[in-house]
Amino acid sequence: MTTTSANGAAAGPDDDVETPEHPGTTATIALIAAEAGVSIPTVSKVLNGRTDVAAVTRARVEQVIDRHQYRRRRGRSQTGPGLLDLVFHELDAGWAVQIIKGVESVAGPERMGVVLSELGGAHRPRQEWLDDVLARRPRGVILVLSDLDPAQRRQLETRSIPFVVVDTAGEQPPGVPTVGSANWAGGLAATRHLLGLGHRRVAVISGPVDVLCSRARIDGYRTALDEAGVAVDPSLIRYGDFFVGGGYTHGLDLLDRPDRPTAIFAGSDFQALGVMRAARELGLRVPEDLSIVGYDDLPLTEWIGPPLTTIHQPLQEMAATATRMVLAMARGEAPTNPRIDLATELVIRESTAPPAAV
Amino acid sequence: MTTTSANGAAAGPDDDVETPEHPGTTATIALIAAEAGVSIPTVSKVLNGRTDVAAVTRARVEQVIDRHQYRRRRGRSQTGPGLLDLVFHELDAGWAVQIIKGVESVAGPERMGVVLSELGGAHRPRQEWLDDVLARRPRGVILVLSDLDPAQRRQLETRSIPFVVVDTAGEQPPGVPTVGSANWAGGLAATRHLLGLGHRRVAVISGPVDVLCSRARIDGYRTALDEAGVAVDPSLIRYGDFFVGGGYTHGLDLLDRPDRPTAIFAGSDFQALGVMRAARELGLRVPEDLSIVGYDDLPLTEWIGPPLTTIHQPLQEMAATATRMVLAMARGEAPTNPRIDLATELVIRESTAPPAAV
Repeated sequence: MTTTSANGAAAGPDDDVETPEHPGTTATIALIAAEAGVSIPTVSKVLNGRTDVAAVTRARVEQVIDRHQYRRRRGRSQTGPGLLDLVFHELDAGWAVQIIKGVESVAGPERMGVVLSELGGAHRPRQEWLDDVLARRPRGVILVLSDLDPAQRRQLETRSIPFVVVDTAGEQPPGVPTVGSANWAGGLAATRHLLGLGHRRVAVISGPVDVLCSRARIDGYRTALDEAGVAVDPSLIRYGDFFVGGGYTHGLDLLDRPDRPTAIFAGSDFQALGVMRAARELGLRVPEDLSIVGYDDLPLTEWIGPPLTTIHQPLQEMAATATRMVLAMARGEAPTNPRIDLATELVIRESTAPPAAV
Repeated sequence: MTTTSANGAAAGPDDDVETPEHPGTTATIALIAAEAGVSIPTVSKVLNGRTDVAAVTRARVEQVIDRHQYRRRRGRSQTGPGLLDLVFHELDAGWAVQIIKGVESVAGPERMGVVLSELGGAHRPRQEWLDDVLARRPRGVILVLSDLDPAQRRQLETRSIPFVVVDTAGEQPPGVPTVGSANWAGGLAATRHLLGLGHRRVAVISGPVDVLCSRARIDGYRTALDEAGVAVDPSLIRYGDFFVGGGYTHGLDLLDRPDRPTAIFAGSDFQALGVMRAARELGLRVPEDLSIVGYDDLPLTEWIGPPLTTIHQPLQEMAATATRMVLAMARGEAPTNPRIDLATELVIRESTAPPAAV
């Protein structure tokens, strides 16, 4: 491990153009090097996410960069071939592919290579991932259901790499552009549909409790019950995992009781599959004995038996919007709408019907 | 459009190390430039897939590169962060995600960014895509159900970018490393299972006729019938598209006739979903009236009703194997097995049963 380099050869090709982006700031790479007590190539290495710089040196350089609000000028041309980073907290079938297709639909024609990463279920990337991003210098980063901590955000900002968050897992600080969908309205529409069919015992299985969109869907459910004058039964409100397993486990638990619900809003299409399986195992027919509403409208919902009533979430369009947004930011344009929620829509198929006469 | 550059500034950072890789060849970039009658930076641009070189000049340079069997030396370090290109002919839910997960399982720990491309259903990439690959200089390229033409193959070879083909759509020329699975054995196992249950009218819906793995699965089907002394009825052999639609269309056609089959080997899990829907619409119960076997063993097959009997294809392991292979080639190792087929396996669930007594 060396912290300095005898000559500049190890530094990147654009290091000769390191000057601050904003006229208001006066920091140059030379100033930062001097103030941090390191060589100019070392500052370049830190800016490029190189790991052959001692951690303590690196932290000192980051501090000086931060104090001066240094912004690396985007040295390479921002048109023509380049890279975009797309990060998933977890790759699942169906959902992730819709997002990828949406990103590709914009990135492809602009000849952007899309670099895909999966965080293995974590909602925040490890520093190692961020180092690799700094090293490859993409035009921008799209985070799906994942998030950066403040230090990671600053690292992207100081390198002038814009980022957009799709379908935020948590509250985003002001200034972080996000693209989501109308989760509350989706929960409302799903529950209104079931109430409109005559159901009064309606359960909900949403996603994880610490994911904001889960809570928004449940709040939509509550409001629909409230509108209809139906009391909320807390034992009918469940937090799952958005995967088949969550729907199956909560489905079995909800359906295997004497006062079982006659309808379940399953929170995701995968959870709806899990509820269907639970119903099958308990000998309940869908929709005759149990109505089920999914969420997402993945392609498979049309094909399963019975085809699933669900809330359409425009995943491809959300991803395309995020991609256009991050590419505009890479060109130096400020996002006109830093927080966009696209509309959700009820799609009625064959998994919902009026409750059987009691 | 300029065909030459006044100075070398536009060329890539590694151009100073352009020398032939193989001691047997003597071509240098300077020689190629002289022979093609262009400047050295122009040769560099062609090597880097830059499009600001006139097409006719480019073709001439490629010709000279080819004649001299020039191989660019891999100038950048082949360890540490880098890129891998992963190319799908088409992104479909389920199948593609398994492949991506397999690639990430090897690429992630090696800190390789995976650049994902989709060819929009074409089995051969456009030159534009290849230009972008040459420009970003990945460690290697993994092609899924897609293929390169001889000129494209040569372009990668001359830049020392290794590539591996997963699940070959067509016959690969000798020397092209491929990873597939035992398609013929899969077709054999699926059909033997149905015959073993007592079925005698067994149909098959495979993938597209021009995809080699489709034909291998059908040949396995034929051999199983032959073993059992059951005559092949050509009207029961269909070529679909591997998607739900193909299964649905052929399913309706096969099942809506007086001498309908009592079992269908559906060629893919998605096609099995389509056959299930066709059966539902015709009032046929699975497995009581119709047995169905899928192919792939995607996660969803466990969850649908009834859970699908299918042929497990080790997609993640195939992708991981291809990734290890291409990274070894990038390190200069020759692949020990240029053609690997991983085993397939019958997974019995609830969509198959003996035929109803006639």
